[in-house]
Amino acid sequence: MRPQEIIAKKRDGGRLSEQEIDVFIDGVCSGSWPDYQISALIMAMFLRGLDRAEQEALTYAMLHSGSVLELSAIAAPKGDKHSTGGVGDKTSLVIAPLAAACGLAVPMISGRGLGHTGGTLDKLEAIDGYNVNISPTEIERIVNVCGFAMAGQTDDIAPADRTIYALRDATATVPYIPLIVASIMSKKLAEGLDALVLDVKSGSGAFMPEYEDSLALARELVETGRKFKVRTEAVISDMSQPLGRFVGNAVETYECIRILRGETEAAASDTEALSIELTARLLNLAGLADGPEAARMIAADKLASGEAFERFRRNIELQGGDCRVCDDPDLLLPRGVEESSIKAPRGGFVSAIDTASMGNAIGAIGGGRTRAEDSVDHAVGYACTAKIGDHVAEGDYLGVLYSRGGDGAAQAADRLARCYTIGDEKPLPLPLIREIIS
Amino acid sequence: MRPQEIIAKKRDGGRLSEQEIDVFIDGVCSGSWPDYQISALIMAMFLRGLDRAEQEALTYAMLHSGSVLELSAIAAPKGDKHSTGGVGDKTSLVIAPLAAACGLAVPMISGRGLGHTGGTLDKLEAIDGYNVNISPTEIERIVNVCGFAMAGQTDDIAPADRTIYALRDATATVPYIPLIVASIMSKKLAEGLDALVLDVKSGSGAFMPEYEDSLALARELVETGRKFKVRTEAVISDMSQPLGRFVGNAVETYECIRILRGETEAAASDTEALSIELTARLLNLAGLADGPEAARMIAADKLASGEAFERFRRNIELQGGDCRVCDDPDLLLPRGVEESSIKAPRGGFVSAIDTASMGNAIGAIGGGRTRAEDSVDHAVGYACTAKIGDHVAEGDYLGVLYSRGGDGAAQAADRLARCYTIGDEKPLPLPLIREIIS
Repeated sequence: MRPQEIIAKKRDGGRLSEQEIDVFIDGVCSGSWPDYQISALIMAMFLRGLDRAEQEALTYAMLHSGSVLELSAIAAPKGDKHSTGGVGDKTSLVIAPLAAACGLAVPMISGRGLGHTGGTLDKLEAIDGYNVNISPTEIERIVNVCGFAMAGQTDDIAPADRTIYALRDATATVPYIPLIVASIMSKKLAEGLDALVLDVKSGSGAFMPEYEDSLALARELVETGRKFKVRTEAVISDMSQPLGRFVGNAVETYECIRILRGETEAAASDTEALSIELTARLLNLAGLADGPEAARMIAADKLASGEAFERFRRNIELQGGDCRVCDDPDLLLPRGVEESSIKAPRGGFVSAIDTASMGNAIGAIGGGRTRAEDSVDHAVGYACTAKIGDHVAEGDYLGVLYSRGGDGAAQAADRLARCYTIGDEKPLPLPLIREIIS
Repeated sequence: MRPQEIIAKKRDGGRLSEQEIDVFIDGVCSGSWPDYQISALIMAMFLRGLDRAEQEALTYAMLHSGSVLELSAIAAPKGDKHSTGGVGDKTSLVIAPLAAACGLAVPMISGRGLGHTGGTLDKLEAIDGYNVNISPTEIERIVNVCGFAMAGQTDDIAPADRTIYALRDATATVPYIPLIVASIMSKKLAEGLDALVLDVKSGSGAFMPEYEDSLALARELVETGRKFKVRTEAVISDMSQPLGRFVGNAVETYECIRILRGETEAAASDTEALSIELTARLLNLAGLADGPEAARMIAADKLASGEAFERFRRNIELQGGDCRVCDDPDLLLPRGVEESSIKAPRGGFVSAIDTASMGNAIGAIGGGRTRAEDSVDHAVGYACTAKIGDHVAEGDYLGVLYSRGGDGAAQAADRLARCYTIGDEKPLPLPLIREIIS
């Protein structure tokens, strides 16, 4: 079947068969479909739509375009959490050791920051020596010892997604739910999981800011997980402002270690709460707790007892990192960088934060990437002092920027100041967890 | 402006500004837009649509992506004919010398056959030595001597179209009127014409078979020509069966030389009639005749007098071809090839011909190309004996295939036989010229 015939069928609004979708994904992997044919079909899918059967066939073909983790020798139920991405969204670093301490095996494969959102791998690499480039065999060994491993995506996991995602990024075809579902689920299903919890962000810092879009995405993700026989739930969580106190790489790791040490700062209580809730959802799905309430109790206990913290320390050792950050988290605080305070231009209530713009401002000074091949500066970041609903007087701190100085810093500070809307009325509070789709 | 922003705007149904279209075409020419971004935007244009202002801006940008023929030293009005392509559509070889004999300067830039349609350049190259690869300077010199020149598209004429057309062909985005208009008109306007006649084909051998589509295309072509200050008309002509007696390269040139010699066979009367009509339209548009009826008289006279034939002979000399075919057209008839007769499987009236399939059958044995880089076999072809409305008895000849034998020939013969629908009722005759859009 020629690529043109498949493209023309979707162009005219036809429904692609499993066989046609297989031919497409085979062509992506073998290189027999050049980039321009892939991107033409993707645009036609975006504009003409994919129904659920097509979405599932695409997920299946992309999942089987590479290899699947073989962890059957591990007796414990296997689970993972995936977030659609946000600003200050650092819960993976708490959830993985916490779920492991509760008896789950967590083979967590994560990504790097791109655009306005941060990435788990970049945060972990703020720990000296921490190695995320580990093989499936090492993942298995490390999960066996400490209950979890944190790895980057290898070349053989869902290779079709890598090609397609890069093209979608370059051709303005990212924000379409069936393509997002196939991309996320083809990678997560390759982990060979029993349970999966999806943290779908909603609000100004989310990839799709509108609540209705987040809800639709969450439903499709859960439906697809089920279809592939993985117990799956989605939580829609608020991303109308950064999660927790810090945005950046080293500072976010700092915030997580403080939580794991039982030293959660007030400004990081949302990070802790969301980490416990997502862990509890995982435990419940995996059959390790008798209902969500019991699961929350177990997770909170294992956090308070320091068992999750010990798992994290053990994992850092196993993945080659410098464990001194566990005993002295302050080592991760910004050093040798310039601090600039962002101040309120008027008094009133913080009524809205342009969170994506905030993420982009930090990204632009090295906290994130514009292109996948860029490197990040782990030390730069932002302490988000004032959150939505807080009252500030003119000149009060809204936050503190940690940067390398120069024009870039001045531009970032200016951009950060413009992220805040200050009004006269106290805004209605938004719950951290807006919906649970099970 | 990043390509993604322009692609996203069209993806969401926005109207592209002239500036955005210029950025796109500049990116195509400079290579700063990779193929996958071009094809994503083209698919979005296809599915979201381009309005007339966008179509004109695209034509303008593509026209000015390269150079325009500078023929201002030629005093005569300059005119050309362009066909949307058909099977057996060979009128260029008659029209160019005939219009030249009537006083028009014809700098005709033509294409090669692709898919089921033939190309003027391939037909001319059936004449030994005939060189279509001539420079703008040579075009000017030859037009000055004999009134017309027949050349291939050079690299500097509308280079953006070459890139975009190749991608459209590979991504199923060819059949969309605004893209077709921009492609045709950017090349034709680069000839610096005073008058242009477009032969828009309709029927089973046309690129867009439906009459309504041909009509819409014709109207847009004429409107665009006017906008660019070229006197433009379109003729919608019948392509529900091959034009004339022959399909192929050498045999079509044979048919034209016979017409120019005043020896038109009955089966080629439609080729002659259409050539006279299109030439007359051009003369009238260019102000060389006092109305269409007078123009037809002039054209018929110049054909009958042999003046057009002498122009053709002179042109062959100037373009390096072997003039013996003028004195002995039989030199172009098939030699050393195998002849297979296609016979009627039942008696009745030929009620329909799948003309595109007929073109593809001849193309598959070397008469045309599947890919632009393929070469053609000038000798192969088909004599189309029975036309629509003809009554045949079982076993009567429908046509004769000239091939190189072997499996390919057997398959072509089989395919040709299946192109005919034979029924019990005599079909209503379709006029050769279905509409004139001026």
